[in-house]
Amino acid sequence: MCELLGMSANVPTDICFSFTGLIQRGGKTGPHKDGWGIAFYEGKGCRLFHDPNPSVDSKVAELLQKYPIKSNIVISHIRKANRGKVELKNTHPFARELWGSYWTFAHNGQLKGIKKEPLKEFRPVGTTDSEHAFCRLLSELKRKFKDRPKDERRLISEIEKLLSILGKKGVSNVLLSDSKYLYAFCSTKLAYITRHAPFGKARLIDADMTVDFRKHTGPKDIVTVLATQPLTKNETWHDLKAGEFQVWKEGRLFYQKP
Amino acid sequence: MCELLGMSANVPTDICFSFTGLIQRGGKTGPHKDGWGIAFYEGKGCRLFHDPNPSVDSKVAELLQKYPIKSNIVISHIRKANRGKVELKNTHPFARELWGSYWTFAHNGQLKGIKKEPLKEFRPVGTTDSEHAFCRLLSELKRKFKDRPKDERRLISEIEKLLSILGKKGVSNVLLSDSKYLYAFCSTKLAYITRHAPFGKARLIDADMTVDFRKHTGPKDIVTVLATQPLTKNETWHDLKAGEFQVWKEGRLFYQKP
Repeated sequence: MCELLGMSANVPTDICFSFTGLIQRGGKTGPHKDGWGIAFYEGKGCRLFHDPNPSVDSKVAELLQKYPIKSNIVISHIRKANRGKVELKNTHPFARELWGSYWTFAHNGQLKGIKKEPLKEFRPVGTTDSEHAFCRLLSELKRKFKDRPKDERRLISEIEKLLSILGKKGVSNVLLSDSKYLYAFCSTKLAYITRHAPFGKARLIDADMTVDFRKHTGPKDIVTVLATQPLTKNETWHDLKAGEFQVWKEGRLFYQKP
Repeated sequence: MCELLGMSANVPTDICFSFTGLIQRGGKTGPHKDGWGIAFYEGKGCRLFHDPNPSVDSKVAELLQKYPIKSNIVISHIRKANRGKVELKNTHPFARELWGSYWTFAHNGQLKGIKKEPLKEFRPVGTTDSEHAFCRLLSELKRKFKDRPKDERRLISEIEKLLSILGKKGVSNVLLSDSKYLYAFCSTKLAYITRHAPFGKARLIDADMTVDFRKHTGPKDIVTVLATQPLTKNETWHDLKAGEFQVWKEGRLFYQKP
């Protein structure tokens, strides 16, 4: 299994604090030492960092803990390999371009038999069931919609359908983004917290670190963080239910089902 | 205009030395301060680093000068914007998946009217003529070959044709890779050097730095570096001619035309 981290914010926000908590689980407080990756969206642009090394030992991860990249949407993943070797090509998040936007996908779970399902437009580079599932999802979207639908509810509804189908094939917790929305699907384990004024202090579970958000935020900031397991010990995180699908936009819940 | 850097090697090799030379030109010894990027291939996997900040001031570039990522193929680019704003989405190298491999593309030049040419399978995320040209090239390849042709000469010949067509539309120096080959097309300016035993010392033009390759190499290592302008002052670099197309594999020249 793996662990996921996502962020949606209405102002460009760094994720140093949450990322510091997550990467401890990549070999120190958790067993997810088979690589890690992170995608930062800045407008339509997307920066990706991937490393097949354990996140606690990674020079790049060390830099990202201190270097505040300001972003509206972030997706990160630390890996405990079960399908697919420990190799750069198998580290999440995976990225593809569709309709002139970068789509990124991070996945926690196992999808039995998915690699037997045929692919069309998008093909995996690595050997994980997760990347195969992502390519299936984007291929289906492209087949259904030649261009991004103007009515975004149609797009969201189709993504919900496709992620629900995936969820029936095994364990499948997903974070997905197209640079506009952060889509989350919970199969077994995913939690979120939305922070807004009045901001307070938060303390990490996995490292001896506290942040006072009052020093880093403005009164109108709204920031939602999603993670496989809560990252802080003095705040209330909300668990998603099995089968729950959420769409986050600028820190706020834009759509959810059921 | 921009500057390009590429590497092809028969053993995983780091590019810290050449990269250190290149990034000085991103705001210090050269005017290419509108962002930079680099792609490292490790097998079929590919790590990308992009930054819209000047490379001489970039924390990520600072790390990459010291942190030896071992790779068989590298493509890097420092940007002096002419078409398209200074933004993350406009930083090279651009990347797309085709036939289950990551293709990356870095470009130096200007292509008049290219953005009016229609696109099919691949679409740009940013606003540069370079990314548009890359999407055209991959769309044409995908239209011509449903799968990667088994006879690689057919693929190479098609790429040569498409890059030559691009070269007729303006200034167009290109580095392109599919994780197997490093393709280079010279429109106006590109040089290369192949290093092999007996290795010697090299001194950068743009920084006070010397490397003794004897300390870092084995007797069978072959490493070719391509750059818009030579990076070292005590070695002989070879200029490509206008219209010259080269394909590098594992440090050796695999194909060239004319």
